[in-house]
Amino acid sequence: MARVVVDVMPKAEILDPQGQAISGALGRLGFDGIADVRQGKRFELEVDDSVDDEALDRIAAELLANTVIEDYSVTRVQEAAS
Amino acid sequence: MARVVVDVMPKAEILDPQGQAISGALGRLGFDGIADVRQGKRFELEVDDSVDDEALDRIAAELLANTVIEDYSVTRVQEAAS
Repeated sequence: MARVVVDVMPKAEILDPQGQAISGALGRLGFDGIADVRQGKRFELEVDDSVDDEALDRIAAELLANTVIEDYSVTRVQEAAS
Repeated sequence: MARVVVDVMPKAEILDPQGQAISGALGRLGFDGIADVRQGKRFELEVDDSVDDEALDRIAAELLANTVIEDYSVTRVQEAAS
């Protein structure tokens, strides 16, 4: 088994209203010095060793991210001893 | 300016219906070998150098995460030259 993290973030050129709302809230709550906030998604998958990087990339691109407006990255964070 | 990543994930003992739905969809789409999926949030903040780790921890705990049901981690990923 391995743990895989897929990070999905809105593309840089896409407006991120959730992030803007958080940024505004931080200012109103008295947290200064935060120039920008962007909100995305993080998926943690437990996968069998039979799942290769190509399959993980297809999972991320086809199911987890909307590649029209989002970028994704796939990272294997842990190779547990089997 | 520094870039800070805050990862927010449902606690291990909390049911994650979004992750379960993804896990089920992966099986129906023919992706085998995915034992578990959990979905959380990823925030990317651009912060001034004046913002210390304590302030970032408060931002994560008070605004970005619901610490009753979610765990968070704060990571500085980049210290840009000023």
